[in-house]
Amino acid sequence: VTGSDYADIRINADRLREDFAELCEIGATIHGGVSRLALSNEDLQARAWLDRRFQHSGIEVRDDDAGNLSGILRSENPDARTLILGSHLDTVPDGGCYDGSVGVLAALEVLRTIRDAGITLPVHLEAIDFTDEEGCWHPNLGSGALTGTLTENYNSDRDRDYGPFRAALYRAGIPPNNIHKARRDPATLAGYLELHIEQSQRLFEAGCDIGVITNIAGRSSYQMEFRGEACHSGTTAMENRQDALLGASTYIVEAHRLIRECFPGGMFNCENLAVSPGTFNMIPDRANVVWDCRHIDKEQMEIMEGRLLELAKEQATVHSLDVWVKRLVRTSVATMAGRAVLEIERVCERLGVSSMRMASYAGHDAQIMSTFTPSGMIFIPSVGGISHTSREFTEWRHVIQGANVLLHSALGIATEVG
Amino acid sequence: VTGSDYADIRINADRLREDFAELCEIGATIHGGVSRLALSNEDLQARAWLDRRFQHSGIEVRDDDAGNLSGILRSENPDARTLILGSHLDTVPDGGCYDGSVGVLAALEVLRTIRDAGITLPVHLEAIDFTDEEGCWHPNLGSGALTGTLTENYNSDRDRDYGPFRAALYRAGIPPNNIHKARRDPATLAGYLELHIEQSQRLFEAGCDIGVITNIAGRSSYQMEFRGEACHSGTTAMENRQDALLGASTYIVEAHRLIRECFPGGMFNCENLAVSPGTFNMIPDRANVVWDCRHIDKEQMEIMEGRLLELAKEQATVHSLDVWVKRLVRTSVATMAGRAVLEIERVCERLGVSSMRMASYAGHDAQIMSTFTPSGMIFIPSVGGISHTSREFTEWRHVIQGANVLLHSALGIATEVG
Repeated sequence: VTGSDYADIRINADRLREDFAELCEIGATIHGGVSRLALSNEDLQARAWLDRRFQHSGIEVRDDDAGNLSGILRSENPDARTLILGSHLDTVPDGGCYDGSVGVLAALEVLRTIRDAGITLPVHLEAIDFTDEEGCWHPNLGSGALTGTLTENYNSDRDRDYGPFRAALYRAGIPPNNIHKARRDPATLAGYLELHIEQSQRLFEAGCDIGVITNIAGRSSYQMEFRGEACHSGTTAMENRQDALLGASTYIVEAHRLIRECFPGGMFNCENLAVSPGTFNMIPDRANVVWDCRHIDKEQMEIMEGRLLELAKEQATVHSLDVWVKRLVRTSVATMAGRAVLEIERVCERLGVSSMRMASYAGHDAQIMSTFTPSGMIFIPSVGGISHTSREFTEWRHVIQGANVLLHSALGIATEVG
Repeated sequence: VTGSDYADIRINADRLREDFAELCEIGATIHGGVSRLALSNEDLQARAWLDRRFQHSGIEVRDDDAGNLSGILRSENPDARTLILGSHLDTVPDGGCYDGSVGVLAALEVLRTIRDAGITLPVHLEAIDFTDEEGCWHPNLGSGALTGTLTENYNSDRDRDYGPFRAALYRAGIPPNNIHKARRDPATLAGYLELHIEQSQRLFEAGCDIGVITNIAGRSSYQMEFRGEACHSGTTAMENRQDALLGASTYIVEAHRLIRECFPGGMFNCENLAVSPGTFNMIPDRANVVWDCRHIDKEQMEIMEGRLLELAKEQATVHSLDVWVKRLVRTSVATMAGRAVLEIERVCERLGVSSMRMASYAGHDAQIMSTFTPSGMIFIPSVGGISHTSREFTEWRHVIQGANVLLHSALGIATEVG
């Protein structure tokens, strides 16, 4: 058998929609969105709900030492490899109902559909909810643990108090010292597929149904402190100052200019800036910025990051400041498996939905998984490209199309690699 | 008699120095500076100390409903007008020993010197310590109250909780509702003279002993909030953003450029910037800045302020943002009395100390008093121009010269206007 032998099979759209409506109630906000911060009561409630959904459908439940929660449809061959489908149920504060949830619910629905159809596959099929994709405590904690890529000191170092993080893990039944045990052997895996909303407006603007992800942008995040001298703002001539805020402001403006002019495909955002002393009559002596940059090309990413670090030194010199630099996060550019890209495209053609290849600028668990096992990612349009707010919205027909593309891509890959 | 009849009289430098050493102990910091925030224990202790110094010298003590503390040397004519000499004993947090203190101590010393010399003047002579010059609660609270220029809502409005301020006033024995009673009748005054350190390095660099102040810069302070949209920083194209922090940063950079290029004699400082939401992966939707500008020319000040407000609107438009604007403070450009300027210059020549005319960019009580009574201001050099830190330092010979210039200027004006 091959994937195309199951050409007429479709997911149960009503069942999926009922699940979606129930899940939206967990952590619902007054604005019509959801807040399910990782390891919060709401997140734990959503996991308990998913657990019941698996059990209710007679699907075997598994959880690991990082809190990742899975339902498994076993192959008849006990030594078969496992094809994982999934995403995450946690959200940003005051987030939307679609980000992450759609991928987990579709994975659940794909398992139920295959089981209902009585199909037996040459791989185990696993639907997974990864812990803390959004980084409330640590971005991609669950997929990082599963792939063994968490740094040693991810929950303790000298610069920060990780006590609340560790307490939250214990409360969720995840002893921090056991998280490394969640690591799996890549030889046991047949691949990873993730359905997700786009969170940007390229599909929406192009009127296209499905985005076939080719690669996921690398991201680096830095904290920098520009340090000058706090003098009286009325009596210090403008040309004699060491104004940390002016230095930081110029850095932000010039960094934006640099990326827009020299790095097409690059992204830059300064997310925060804090000033000291920040008072009446005083020239700021400290301006602390946190920024990140992204690129979809590995080589360009490195050059861009280097230029952004040089720029900070240049601007510090121009404004007679010192600059202190700390790297907070670095995730590499990820490449989706060519086999997965082709399979998803073939499925779209067969199902008669339009598709386009694209890169993702948002990070996803697929980015982590792709370093570990051949991975693929399917995007569906976000109306207006809006995400991470209660106004996040995807048309229901796109959710159904996405779930069916996930179903058939899984069937195709399962039968091919099994 | 005229001022020059007392040509040989000098202040008692040892007595002044002993006072200075004692005062420096009150609120002394480990760094060698002082913290005497207005209405704090240390400020109240310094006032109690000044009260004892007046009493110890047999000088009549007076305090008013705004907490201004004075010593008075009465003229034989009970209907005489009053010439006020003074400054302030309060400091900024972790400030220096000279700012304000030198002026109050010199005023005390001038009164003692004149009384010791048995001189009777045709005016009452008053040495005053003004409440909260530094603006811990409200800039120039004491001189504002004395001149009746405080706004009605200076201790209550809808935007801010003034409870702690009112509590601090009560604790210091200053019922807030009586402060307006501190207002004096300008017809009862003969003028105001203030000795102060320069807090800038023009005298120090020119090697000049005395600065004769001609005018004091006007100052306006604004709070502005740039408002955009908080989107995902990885998925929102750089050209489609409404990034409040980028708008605010550009504003700061362009405002500095504007003042430096188009307004010689103007000053600009952005003292604080706060970002919302300030988190991981989010483009800032709010950037709240507080800035001030100063100019020594009334007309240029108005044009400059207008251009800075226009610039905010321009930058908001360029970055697709809204901008909300609130004026926090506005003090007008102040002009010192021509008579006082000439008298101080004549005294410098007679005493053989060098002098130069200059404008002050820092605000002083003389700025408030000058709108009310003919006022003059005497600057002495600050080493390196450093002020508002524990490293603030003025050579002792300059303090003595300044006190003697104050003495003879007071004698000259007293005999002339009496």
